[in-house]
Amino acid sequence: MHQSQTSFTIPTRGKSLYEFTDQVADWLASTDIATGLLTLFCRHTSASLLINENAAPAVQRDILRWMEMVAPERAGYEHDDEGPDDMPAHIRTLLTGESLQIPVADGRMVLGTWQGIFLAEHRSSAHRRQVVGHLIGE
Amino acid sequence: MHQSQTSFTIPTRGKSLYEFTDQVADWLASTDIATGLLTLFCRHTSASLLINENAAPAVQRDILRWMEMVAPERAGYEHDDEGPDDMPAHIRTLLTGESLQIPVADGRMVLGTWQGIFLAEHRSSAHRRQVVGHLIGE
Amino acid sequence: MHQSQTSFTIPTRGKSLYEFTDQVADWLASTDIATGLLTLFCRHTSASLLINENAAPAVQRDILRWMEMVAPERAGYEHDDEGPDDMPAHIRTLLTGESLQIPVADGRMVLGTWQGIFLAEHRSSAHRRQVVGHLIGE
Repeated sequence: MHQSQTSFTIPTRGKSLYEFTDQVADWLASTDIATGLLTLFCRHTSASLLINENAAPAVQRDILRWMEMVAPERAGYEHDDEGPDDMPAHIRTLLTGESLQIPVADGRMVLGTWQGIFLAEHRSSAHRRQVVGHLIGE
Repeated sequence: MHQSQTSFTIPTRGKSLYEFTDQVADWLASTDIATGLLTLFCRHTSASLLINENAAPAVQRDILRWMEMVAPERAGYEHDDEGPDDMPAHIRTLLTGESLQIPVADGRMVLGTWQGIFLAEHRSSAHRRQVVGHLIGE
Repeated sequence: MHQSQTSFTIPTRGKSLYEFTDQVADWLASTDIATGLLTLFCRHTSASLLINENAAPAVQRDILRWMEMVAPERAGYEHDDEGPDDMPAHIRTLLTGESLQIPVADGRMVLGTWQGIFLAEHRSSAHRRQVVGHLIGE
């Protein structure tokens, strides 16, 4: 049994979902772990990780619109140090969380047919987001 | 230290919470791992996993009603390829996520007294949902 | 490769976010695991765990107000055995979930600069909450 760790940098250009399933799969393939547990951890409080359908782009647009609805800008927040997208970004980060766990079997993540891995950028401006990958197995 | 993996099939009959705590406990007991980490992963984008109270059925009904409220059908979604329950199912999957992690001690999950493990089916029609179980420990 | 487990007791005094990052870091330092995966698991259905900004207290107050908005009290719940804060507490637990996973590198959690670990108490009265810590690595 052993471990492998890496860091993914995801450049973002405003609020959107950025898929990076292939980057994770490529890293996994570069390790010699065939059976195990993969953890991804986003080191930010205004960007988060989620798994959802990656076939229809309309799904991603609807998810973003729903986030605008459930955690809107300019909703009378006390904290707005960095502008109207500041506090909604923290709340939307809570909605999906900062980590994902995916079992690995036969050298591949056990993702279902339509499951893709996304970084959700919740700030309006461009950022470079860091996601730590941890893999344990054999 | 070693690992064990399995797959649970959860048959569903429309939107509801389906408890499968006992199935997980039975599998755990069949392994020889007494101390470790259990991960459950749902391989779908319109069904999710959650832990909540399993004593009062009214709690589960209130959770379902709240999901109808916070991610309603017919809310002007762009994506409705598979009907009005399609996009809300993707959003409700985000709300609870597709994976659970539960430490194992003395051969048992460290669940609290009232914690049960549920698959949340977010589609109206019947499905057979696959949940991968991964256990690492000794 | 080996494991370590512990239990944190978090005393709460009503609905609020209670940071316990330092307690987790102290426990981590007391183990001899430098590289691995940390899991925290809250054994309750009316308190949950989350990571968010720990620098500005206003962020925490806005998060609490948002939870009051998205899962309000007295919203016609069927289940109110323990009062108006009972069912909203179960729903708010779903929103952030009961577990966190944080990779460990060089003997420290890979938290970003502003990320703190919080227990979210969703009940109005005082409680003593139990969080299980599990660490696997080498």
